[in-house]
Amino acid sequence: MFAMCRSCWVKDALLATMRGVREVVVIVFLAICSMANAIKPCPRATVVRDEVSYCLSWRMSVEANNMAGWRTVPMQCLPYIQGYMIGGQYDRDMAFIADQILSYVKGIVLSDDGMDAWILDVDDTCISNLFYYKGKRFGCDPYDPKGFKAWALKGGCPAISAVLGLFDKLVESGFKVILLTGRDEETLGQVTVDNLHNQGFIGYERLILRRAEHKGQGAIQYKSGIRKQLVEEGYRIWGNVGDQWSDLQGDYKGNRAFKLPNPMYFVP
Amino acid sequence: MFAMCRSCWVKDALLATMRGVREVVVIVFLAICSMANAIKPCPRATVVRDEVSYCLSWRMSVEANNMAGWRTVPMQCLPYIQGYMIGGQYDRDMAFIADQILSYVKGIVLSDDGMDAWILDVDDTCISNLFYYKGKRFGCDPYDPKGFKAWALKGGCPAISAVLGLFDKLVESGFKVILLTGRDEETLGQVTVDNLHNQGFIGYERLILRRAEHKGQGAIQYKSGIRKQLVEEGYRIWGNVGDQWSDLQGDYKGNRAFKLPNPMYFVP
Repeated sequence: MFAMCRSCWVKDALLATMRGVREVVVIVFLAICSMANAIKPCPRATVVRDEVSYCLSWRMSVEANNMAGWRTVPMQCLPYIQGYMIGGQYDRDMAFIADQILSYVKGIVLSDDGMDAWILDVDDTCISNLFYYKGKRFGCDPYDPKGFKAWALKGGCPAISAVLGLFDKLVESGFKVILLTGRDEETLGQVTVDNLHNQGFIGYERLILRRAEHKGQGAIQYKSGIRKQLVEEGYRIWGNVGDQWSDLQGDYKGNRAFKLPNPMYFVP
Repeated sequence: MFAMCRSCWVKDALLATMRGVREVVVIVFLAICSMANAIKPCPRATVVRDEVSYCLSWRMSVEANNMAGWRTVPMQCLPYIQGYMIGGQYDRDMAFIADQILSYVKGIVLSDDGMDAWILDVDDTCISNLFYYKGKRFGCDPYDPKGFKAWALKGGCPAISAVLGLFDKLVESGFKVILLTGRDEETLGQVTVDNLHNQGFIGYERLILRRAEHKGQGAIQYKSGIRKQLVEEGYRIWGNVGDQWSDLQGDYKGNRAFKLPNPMYFVP
């Protein structure tokens, strides 16, 4: 009886342990399946890995400017782009590039004529539209001009901290920081001034917005035209920073251009 | 005795199972630790994750042309770049870009004057130096001109299959494919012709190498000058493909430029 009881207890313990093993195995399986670089025989993991790999190729192609005129993020990349934008890598990429820019800035000797200039784009360069794009499935939904205007009119875009830090250093170092945006001056001028101010972008030289005369111009043409005027005024453009290739292409590009990441939308 | 024996057997089984559980736990721990996106409390995993994250930022910055004149891959990124180059992602990135190029090519209507041209770089565009760079710690070691020349003189660079496929399609479609390389004509001309031929690059219009008159020119100046001559001859440059930004910058850039990945070295 005693032996039986002990045997029963041992048997129960053995069964419990076996259940434990099964649970561990199930947990391991699920854990492996949920990870991107998982082992081959797990079909779900293979799908996840292939998707991550594809979407990484896609994002790299966007950032290297191989994709002309793309309209929306591929639907299969929604989880990847969401993970990228809010999981930390986007912030780390921003901080990395800001560090690269600052080490370039350190090597510049400014003249004392006050004409050493630096150009920054506004949307998703100085201030972020990430909250808005969350509601647009991180760019899987097509561009919605009315929706974006309503969002911008709230004046609540938060500062991108790495760029605010860069902005402060540039102003402090004596650069004339010129903010150059494709936003419409008439409808979004005041709210943009207020938004930049409430987010700490204080001390810039000019904020240049799109006026009636620029209507119908693509971003490259519009921004090249403005940069030409600045150069004709005597400014030396040491750097130009934007999240769109169209911020950085064209004429009078400045001494160095820096492409910030943005896999959510493309501005032609 | 029987009860005892059964109890012993059960006890042995229990102990074996417990050992099994322990092994599973150890395997799970090691598996989690070896994965990049692992959970926080594992210190080794945190290091791996931070390194992967840093090296991904670095690689993205290289491909987006934010890093001017970098000399070597950061030592901490050796495992990451090795994994990228030989683990499949590099090949997938190449195939992805080749697909992008081919969908652009499909939309081009060629004229019948035989002047529709396409420019391809040679090293790490048509043919690969990956075997050589394996021995240079994937770019963690500094550029070694003598070592590279000795490698190139062997004429054994394998074709990059995605680009060979693209090349064949371009030739087949009627483009005049012009191979434009910074390799020295005098010392590497014949071996380059032979290497391209033995790897299946057959049917190109011209292979242009660096001659005495181009000595001392940076890649942007040299390649811009050649493109200028081609345009003056009447060629329309529809596309330009290279693994270096210096293949794609400067003047007469062509209608579209495509940056292939190369995180191993930088050509100024």
